[in-house]
Amino acid sequence: MSHHPPFEPDLSDSVVARAAALRASLQADAAARDLAGGRPTAQITQLRAIGLLSTWLPTAYGGEGSSWLSVLRAVRELARADGAIAHLYGYHHLNLHSVRARATPAQRDRWFTDSARAQWLWANSGNTLSPTSTARRDGDAWVLDGFRPFSSGTHVADRIVVSWENAEGQRTSAVVPADRAGVVIADDWDGIGQRQTGSGTVRFEGVRIADDEVFLRPGAPLTPFASLIPQLQQSVLLNVFVGSAQGALDEGSAYTRAESRPWIHSGVERHVDDPWVQRKYGELAIRTLAATELADAAARSLDAAYAEGDALTPQQRGALAIEVAAANVYAGEAGLAVSEQVFEVTGARSATRARGYDRFWRNVRTHTLHNPAEYKKRSVGHWFLSGDFPEPGVYR
Amino acid sequence: MSHHPPFEPDLSDSVVARAAALRASLQADAAARDLAGGRPTAQITQLRAIGLLSTWLPTAYGGEGSSWLSVLRAVRELARADGAIAHLYGYHHLNLHSVRARATPAQRDRWFTDSARAQWLWANSGNTLSPTSTARRDGDAWVLDGFRPFSSGTHVADRIVVSWENAEGQRTSAVVPADRAGVVIADDWDGIGQRQTGSGTVRFEGVRIADDEVFLRPGAPLTPFASLIPQLQQSVLLNVFVGSAQGALDEGSAYTRAESRPWIHSGVERHVDDPWVQRKYGELAIRTLAATELADAAARSLDAAYAEGDALTPQQRGALAIEVAAANVYAGEAGLAVSEQVFEVTGARSATRARGYDRFWRNVRTHTLHNPAEYKKRSVGHWFLSGDFPEPGVYR
Amino acid sequence: MSHHPPFEPDLSDSVVARAAALRASLQADAAARDLAGGRPTAQITQLRAIGLLSTWLPTAYGGEGSSWLSVLRAVRELARADGAIAHLYGYHHLNLHSVRARATPAQRDRWFTDSARAQWLWANSGNTLSPTSTARRDGDAWVLDGFRPFSSGTHVADRIVVSWENAEGQRTSAVVPADRAGVVIADDWDGIGQRQTGSGTVRFEGVRIADDEVFLRPGAPLTPFASLIPQLQQSVLLNVFVGSAQGALDEGSAYTRAESRPWIHSGVERHVDDPWVQRKYGELAIRTLAATELADAAARSLDAAYAEGDALTPQQRGALAIEVAAANVYAGEAGLAVSEQVFEVTGARSATRARGYDRFWRNVRTHTLHNPAEYKKRSVGHWFLSGDFPEPGVYR
Amino acid sequence: MSHHPPFEPDLSDSVVARAAALRASLQADAAARDLAGGRPTAQITQLRAIGLLSTWLPTAYGGEGSSWLSVLRAVRELARADGAIAHLYGYHHLNLHSVRARATPAQRDRWFTDSARAQWLWANSGNTLSPTSTARRDGDAWVLDGFRPFSSGTHVADRIVVSWENAEGQRTSAVVPADRAGVVIADDWDGIGQRQTGSGTVRFEGVRIADDEVFLRPGAPLTPFASLIPQLQQSVLLNVFVGSAQGALDEGSAYTRAESRPWIHSGVERHVDDPWVQRKYGELAIRTLAATELADAAARSLDAAYAEGDALTPQQRGALAIEVAAANVYAGEAGLAVSEQVFEVTGARSATRARGYDRFWRNVRTHTLHNPAEYKKRSVGHWFLSGDFPEPGVYR
Repeated sequence: MSHHPPFEPDLSDSVVARAAALRASLQADAAARDLAGGRPTAQITQLRAIGLLSTWLPTAYGGEGSSWLSVLRAVRELARADGAIAHLYGYHHLNLHSVRARATPAQRDRWFTDSARAQWLWANSGNTLSPTSTARRDGDAWVLDGFRPFSSGTHVADRIVVSWENAEGQRTSAVVPADRAGVVIADDWDGIGQRQTGSGTVRFEGVRIADDEVFLRPGAPLTPFASLIPQLQQSVLLNVFVGSAQGALDEGSAYTRAESRPWIHSGVERHVDDPWVQRKYGELAIRTLAATELADAAARSLDAAYAEGDALTPQQRGALAIEVAAANVYAGEAGLAVSEQVFEVTGARSATRARGYDRFWRNVRTHTLHNPAEYKKRSVGHWFLSGDFPEPGVYR
Repeated sequence: MSHHPPFEPDLSDSVVARAAALRASLQADAAARDLAGGRPTAQITQLRAIGLLSTWLPTAYGGEGSSWLSVLRAVRELARADGAIAHLYGYHHLNLHSVRARATPAQRDRWFTDSARAQWLWANSGNTLSPTSTARRDGDAWVLDGFRPFSSGTHVADRIVVSWENAEGQRTSAVVPADRAGVVIADDWDGIGQRQTGSGTVRFEGVRIADDEVFLRPGAPLTPFASLIPQLQQSVLLNVFVGSAQGALDEGSAYTRAESRPWIHSGVERHVDDPWVQRKYGELAIRTLAATELADAAARSLDAAYAEGDALTPQQRGALAIEVAAANVYAGEAGLAVSEQVFEVTGARSATRARGYDRFWRNVRTHTLHNPAEYKKRSVGHWFLSGDFPEPGVYR
Repeated sequence: MSHHPPFEPDLSDSVVARAAALRASLQADAAARDLAGGRPTAQITQLRAIGLLSTWLPTAYGGEGSSWLSVLRAVRELARADGAIAHLYGYHHLNLHSVRARATPAQRDRWFTDSARAQWLWANSGNTLSPTSTARRDGDAWVLDGFRPFSSGTHVADRIVVSWENAEGQRTSAVVPADRAGVVIADDWDGIGQRQTGSGTVRFEGVRIADDEVFLRPGAPLTPFASLIPQLQQSVLLNVFVGSAQGALDEGSAYTRAESRPWIHSGVERHVDDPWVQRKYGELAIRTLAATELADAAARSLDAAYAEGDALTPQQRGALAIEVAAANVYAGEAGLAVSEQVFEVTGARSATRARGYDRFWRNVRTHTLHNPAEYKKRSVGHWFLSGDFPEPGVYR
Repeated sequence: MSHHPPFEPDLSDSVVARAAALRASLQADAAARDLAGGRPTAQITQLRAIGLLSTWLPTAYGGEGSSWLSVLRAVRELARADGAIAHLYGYHHLNLHSVRARATPAQRDRWFTDSARAQWLWANSGNTLSPTSTARRDGDAWVLDGFRPFSSGTHVADRIVVSWENAEGQRTSAVVPADRAGVVIADDWDGIGQRQTGSGTVRFEGVRIADDEVFLRPGAPLTPFASLIPQLQQSVLLNVFVGSAQGALDEGSAYTRAESRPWIHSGVERHVDDPWVQRKYGELAIRTLAATELADAAARSLDAAYAEGDALTPQQRGALAIEVAAANVYAGEAGLAVSEQVFEVTGARSATRARGYDRFWRNVRTHTLHNPAEYKKRSVGHWFLSGDFPEPGVYR
């Protein structure tokens, strides 16, 4: 296609360029894989092959020391074709951050080195606010039993962060290989969107965990830096939403140009010449541009905050939390609106399962629900009125 | 459930009451059938069993002479559980109207009598603006070849209205049994919603048609009464949209009451006590109530216009066209908004394929596209500014 | 103008017809009076001259026994030109209802008879939730001191309902002539809209009140029928909002037809031929039609509930409260949207103070604030989820 | 006020800092001056006193060589209190750009030097697409007769750019002192907003114009650089809109914190603790943040394009035009929404003329009309679909 690409990624950034290249490949069967669900094993292999899984790691460990801006823009590129792969790729980094912020130096050295060398994909199985898993001591190891829901990515991961709570509700986390005996991936994810994220249940059936696999112990102090997990989650998802909006426009506008027919009463020869079609694409593009600008600004602020490391102050963490929450809310609403409305200008013949344009709406709808926009809006409004930042905690 | 049902149908209307009763049955597996697609044969059998397919027919022929208000409210009730069945049931009547308005008295007598007795389901395979089917004379019959897309309901119909154009583009229509030799239902409907409407292709492979099956001949004058097809189409679909909004609220609010958990930072014991949850349901209920009022008003106007029969004037037809277009646009937008936003207050765990709440959005999105809201808005605005009604024609 | 008027009032209703006739007169200087503020004395005289102030009163007292539907449609007609006069005319009836529901038979007979004969305008000065006025006994009378804000219409009223609270916060109300010694109309209303409603302060400086002027005594039981004041308030205001939306479209579309110029890049000869202009008027008309339908439905329900009189049950009162709240919220949002957006299609030259089209927005904005939509939405949502009606009380 | 200011301007930029300081002064009587209309002579004197009128001029002429980003952020700061002053200040620069891009070097040297020294305010009286003014030769001068509407700022300007068309419709422009004989400022601006912009008529009654005052001659080639006027106009106005949104939030939130009362049924002690109030401020802040980000990005792109000077290519100009149009549309819609909705959370008592919060809505509504959002959206959409930029011309 010869015409000017509207949301041109910055291909001078090697991370973004690799993601953009993979996007074309993902797009070819994204609709089919959305229908099929299941495990995107081949796609993770592709991520591994182009080195994207280690790019964020420090160069000292064999990574590339990529910025969050680069990583999040890569998330966005992937989401233009496939929100599920983008999600897994983005959330992978939450675990790397946990290792950086909370593991011992020895653990970090070992895991980062191995992860870079083997291009591990990391996933997390510690979700839920209920204590659904427990561990007991058996000799010199822990033995973990129970289950965790919403364990995105565990079905294709190399390493899984598992968690359990002690009697006081304090959390312990550990890193285990995905093929550790007793780790059972239920493959029961049944979401209406993000179909290949495998965000289902992991069961733990007597999983043995050595002490040096435990990296987060009950009562460990939570610094502002270590408490950035909600901001990283929200950053990943907001870029999934922005990428989904862009992707809906990519595929929608290509269809409109190539296949849409002018309406019978339109009086124009080509659908793209109907003033309404131009206006609607203009509206959707403007909204997507706004979401993109907010996403980039929030990613730059994340990089600035992250550069503070353990020196990050509560105020700096709070200001970032507000900016990320704002960008997240905006991106979610833009993603829903764009993916819904683009159908108006692609038309009745475009709304098929084979084309799968509805996956953008289902993907955004699915993952805008796990952390309600309502509460993020309240946090922003409370800050606006009082200057107070949200107290760090689950989801904020 | 003991509490006051918000969109209580008028059960004193036997047509509505039968539809409401069937709704409960449809709801049980609507989500599963949405995933499966295919032919809702058992469901059509249920419609037949309770006499709904003949209720609109005049009593003289064995029907009940039901009003459009009754029929359209029945459409709405069905759509609260299953937009596809509601669509097939509603569109069935477009063919009965064509027979009434355009067939010879002898044909009408025969077809109405047989239809009432056998509880036929009628469907149409005359869509498209392109001349994709042709007929030639062979002896005392026509022989039809070609195909038609968007032939909703033909996969489960008893009688099919088929059409072809002559060289001047004038249309001929005829009624054939669905099992007539050469009528091939492709079962290739692949829409993202309204999955069991079978709105795919019908192929005609040498279909023989007798002269007394032809009821619409080229050049036959089109009276205002006979030209009500677009208003009937729009009326059926707008009630599918209203019913879908109601259905999304039915299932969403039941889930919210029974299963949704209060948000971790909400400070309330029950999700239904969160002011946000109440406000959101209030907003969605108000919008759905407005759509319902407009739908009822438009249905009453349709009944009034219909009672004019062949005496219907262009002005009366025009005023009806404006009112129906307005109600249709409104209902479509309400259906999309409600079915999208209800997820915010059901929450992350509700967005599963097993529950299938997303089918309401996909159903409305699918059939709001076949006749763009943009052009109906223009018609209403043009009338508002000039007093001029849209010229009767395809889709308006 | 010869073309079909879109929101044609039902002129077969004499109350509506008189209001519609007055509307033309009000429209002539509504913009000028909006700028001037102050007292619409001449306009109230016009209302009186055509008998509108007594039409709601029972025929036995010299009134016409008009329905709420008639009265509220008259409110709507007036608001198409002048929201302030519409407001005063509508709120007048709240006082008549109080007399009917809560006065002694002797008081009712006297006041209704006199009111019908002299065409009194009634207004209320009992607003606020704070006890800002007090009364003491002096001989055989009460003496009232203090003030009340938001006393709409007192600046042009014949009779004023005044109130005070006893030490327990229980309210006493009485009816006094507006020219009673010590009643001081501050004329300090400074609202951004509804500029001639005189919704400012009334001061009470030793106002003597006879016992037979007191009609509401502390501790009097509040029946569902007597507690309909919030529904009457909301009904009046929602019809002010609907009328404002209609009025903005009336004046806007007249301007668009007569004066708006096609945009330089539009390619059309007349502004009304720009597809965008048609679409926008279509959108605004559809929204206004929906508001009108909801308003009519709520008014009919009010009539039905009102006919129950003292037999009105809490359930009937509750169902009405939900319906009126829904219509009120909808009308307010429609009024704001229509009065804001119509400028887009009238254009830059139309936005002058002389034309005063912005008064519609300012009028709706002003009186949508006194009873927040947020809380009415919560009431509707709470009912939707639980079947429970709002507890009767101030504003609901 | 001690709390964190939400839209903190960059006070390290001296231009912005001076504007921010002036803002406090403007805010004190902005509402009163909005009601009064007329000439903001004292306010222009303040602009002059702090050097803001010359800051954009190159240092070689005595200016500060300020960037567009600085100037436009200053526009935004001023608009937080007073959209009219912000408008005049911003539009001033359009004339300076015309001189830079189209005057002879001698003219530019003279006018820039004098303008910096005397802190001239420039305004333009060349609006309208109709040839309402004509000039004839009289000896060695032109004599100008006729009039021009929409001549913002001429009522307080030092220098006015006047224009006339020759018989072929080609424009001539010249610079004259505002007190030149025959220049008559009608002071007839009657807009609903931007009340002190003096955007009314200038009449020309035999205005003599010397040849060296003429700087734009018929047929002069229009380079991409010289054709940036629409982008500068849109940039100024979009920052007026963004500043208006910020200002509505500034004043609204200050009122909410200090004066708003909790709603009677809210159950909270302070209005700011009502979840709804927090959510609404969150929504409005997020939208305003998005508008601010787009505005900053567009200003930076303007600086980059401007740095190209006469080397600016049509493609670069086109890309800028799209970005500015997008930011302008977004800012206008955000300004309307925020200035309308903030009233919901300030409440009924805040909606007074004395407080004048409605001026933000009236200001944005007024100047969003002069260049319809519809056509800017179409331009963006056409570009999105085709890659083609709008053809440079009036308003685009």
